[in-house]
Amino acid sequence: MPTSPNASATVRFRDPQIEMAHGAGGKATRRLIEGLVAPVLGGPLLDSLGDAALLQLDGASLAFTADSFVVRPLRFPGGSIGDLAVNGTVNDLAVGGAKPTTLVLTLILEAGLSTETLEIELRAIASAASRAGVAIVGGDTKVVEHGKADGMYITTAGIGIADRRVRCAPSTVRPGDRILLSGPIGDHGITILLARGEIDLESDLCSDTRSVYPMVHALIASVGDAVHWMRDPTRGGVASALNELAADARVGVVLAEDRIPVREEVRGACELLGLEPLHIANEGQFLAVIAAERADEALEAVRAVPGGEAAVIIGEVRDQPVRTVLAASAYGSSRVVDMLVGDPLPRIC
Amino acid sequence: MPTSPNASATVRFRDPQIEMAHGAGGKATRRLIEGLVAPVLGGPLLDSLGDAALLQLDGASLAFTADSFVVRPLRFPGGSIGDLAVNGTVNDLAVGGAKPTTLVLTLILEAGLSTETLEIELRAIASAASRAGVAIVGGDTKVVEHGKADGMYITTAGIGIADRRVRCAPSTVRPGDRILLSGPIGDHGITILLARGEIDLESDLCSDTRSVYPMVHALIASVGDAVHWMRDPTRGGVASALNELAADARVGVVLAEDRIPVREEVRGACELLGLEPLHIANEGQFLAVIAAERADEALEAVRAVPGGEAAVIIGEVRDQPVRTVLAASAYGSSRVVDMLVGDPLPRIC
Repeated sequence: MPTSPNASATVRFRDPQIEMAHGAGGKATRRLIEGLVAPVLGGPLLDSLGDAALLQLDGASLAFTADSFVVRPLRFPGGSIGDLAVNGTVNDLAVGGAKPTTLVLTLILEAGLSTETLEIELRAIASAASRAGVAIVGGDTKVVEHGKADGMYITTAGIGIADRRVRCAPSTVRPGDRILLSGPIGDHGITILLARGEIDLESDLCSDTRSVYPMVHALIASVGDAVHWMRDPTRGGVASALNELAADARVGVVLAEDRIPVREEVRGACELLGLEPLHIANEGQFLAVIAAERADEALEAVRAVPGGEAAVIIGEVRDQPVRTVLAASAYGSSRVVDMLVGDPLPRIC
Repeated sequence: MPTSPNASATVRFRDPQIEMAHGAGGKATRRLIEGLVAPVLGGPLLDSLGDAALLQLDGASLAFTADSFVVRPLRFPGGSIGDLAVNGTVNDLAVGGAKPTTLVLTLILEAGLSTETLEIELRAIASAASRAGVAIVGGDTKVVEHGKADGMYITTAGIGIADRRVRCAPSTVRPGDRILLSGPIGDHGITILLARGEIDLESDLCSDTRSVYPMVHALIASVGDAVHWMRDPTRGGVASALNELAADARVGVVLAEDRIPVREEVRGACELLGLEPLHIANEGQFLAVIAAERADEALEAVRAVPGGEAAVIIGEVRDQPVRTVLAASAYGSSRVVDMLVGDPLPRIC
């Protein structure tokens, strides 16, 4: 299994206790999963660390995934925890190469939560599920004491039907492959930051929370098995997702820095706070690695989908420096873009 | 759809806020689900309020379910939150008439949780999954601030392959059908109560947490479509499960009180605290409604499975009084056994 990330890894999780950074989707999260969770829970499928597991069950080819959502505040410009809980799981299935069909949902509610707030989120969930074309078929409700759970935590699990036209895996990624990004980055993370009122900045910025399935579907329909890898760059941002690609596929990734779309508000907030836009979470974008000769066709297909107009090729895969992501400026210089370290923006999803 | 619980229901959820009782699995939970969650999230499958949803996907017949676990304390005699999280979802699939095969799992961890505690629970999860014969194929980890989440909350979602030999539904339940219970009741709930140290009682009582699939499998293999309904009586206990049966199938249920197995320690604790054993949660028992003429055969099949020796027929279905559960004493008197009201034992799973 030369492409398993654990084959040569000697990661050990030695931290004595859990810190916020372990939930941030960056280096600490990967160390926790690779160094403790995956070795104990085992299983070859878990080794892949991808967004959704692919299964053969009763003759069906399915993708299966789950995510918990603990975002604060519960509502923010452009969406809410209910939207995220649906779209997050839908997007994990979509970038797993599957058509999302079915969700189950659990609520952990804080005693004292107003029924009105709960009803608003249930309506957001129903509406997001309807937009994404998925059925919610069951669930569970638990209640914990006042002071716990920040109003509510939501967990969604989803099943999708695997699209046989695509078979993404790090092992299929080749030097020369192009990296497609569906649109501007950082909108979600910075929106949450602003919604908390911790910095004084006027902005019309909205979360990008949405289903990426229509774009992924168009991509697969257009170039099929020329799609070698997909990921939705949520916690840890584009930088963490591409560093995982570089590590899992044992390749280098070079980005053309000036091609990466970042809105002015996001860039401004990042400069003010010393944050890297490539580390900021997105909830409605995806990355895809495409065989070079099909990249133009792929881009055209995604751009033809409403909401995909801003898609762009942001870089390419190289055979070296292996396990490294470089951002190259228009002037010829380049810098290493590491995974997220620490957690500057906790609980953004 | 005369058997839909919502067809004639005029339940409205009018409580202004969420209270602990809404998570207890009794009347308040049912009112929340029937009066708010199901109407907003909609869907005919959600109407059934069963433990697992049955799906046709890509040619496969599957069951799909999810549960969150928030038990306090995390560990207790006979098990821990990790055991519950696996067995709870496995049992929902089993009583849904499916062979449990695949789980995904999410962790909401409290910052400051010791790595040792996390590792112990991961090992409990791996061990319970191995015993239950299910694969854990993926998951997610979030971290919330210290003071939230009581160490950890775990959510599991599971898929099972529907067993075509059985088709449980309230609409198949007939007057005369027998009610089978797999073993003694109340062990789990009372174990948690004692583990909290809130009452001073010496006891060797252990939680009954385990997979009920081996017993359910033997039952289905033996009497197949003579099984008309199954449920694992967790939160709200046997009383709440049978009241749901009585309401959903529009029948009466009569129990022979002296046949219901209750351990001395459970009976003693219940008497001390004014609790009803029929309201106490179980995490390793199941109830089944069986056609009368196959009941002996069914009982024999369950008793032949290791751990099923204490199975017993505890009562039968009557055509009236409809929507009511009665417990009849050996002396000819009888009392109404209502669903759980309020929440005397919060957060037992």
